[in-house]
Amino acid sequence: MMVLITYDVNVTTVTGKSRLRKVAKQCVNYGQRVQNSVFECLLDPTQFTELKHRLEKIINPEKDSLRYYFLGNNWKNRVEHVGAKVGYDPEGVLMV
Amino acid sequence: MMVLITYDVNVTTVTGKSRLRKVAKQCVNYGQRVQNSVFECLLDPTQFTELKHRLEKIINPEKDSLRYYFLGNNWKNRVEHVGAKVGYDPEGVLMV
Repeated sequence: MMVLITYDVNVTTVTGKSRLRKVAKQCVNYGQRVQNSVFECLLDPTQFTELKHRLEKIINPEKDSLRYYFLGNNWKNRVEHVGAKVGYDPEGVLMV
Repeated sequence: MMVLITYDVNVTTVTGKSRLRKVAKQCVNYGQRVQNSVFECLLDPTQFTELKHRLEKIINPEKDSLRYYFLGNNWKNRVEHVGAKVGYDPEGVLMV
């Protein structure tokens, strides 16, 4: 299933910056970065549970937030992109 | 229709910061901010065309990006939130 993950991490402190890096690192392992804090991840239910668990262990729930959007099978028709593309990620899938 | 709008604006310059403010201002007029650069907007097709046109006039397409996700009628079942909520927006709808 395609899961869109967006996050806001409060980076006003050093520990916040560290959380941001850790969240991004986990997301990079599971999907394609499409904007700075937005990832599209094609996951099976086990992978989703695993990633969710990892992310929720990293964030500070009083300061940071995560949103998951389940885009379904028809996800390619649900997305429109305008403007600059993020850099090519050699470990990711090619963006079209 | 529910349209999720995410944006990345390159704020390394003064003009970039100005573009970011303008993009956010337009989105605030049309929807609910759910994260710093993520808005959920309940729009009819005319409003969507109008907002899209406004946003695409503001951004620099070589440096910034916009993504639109069409979440469909079943959108409430497609969203999961974890952690901090954004502040209450008196002009928006109550977040649940």
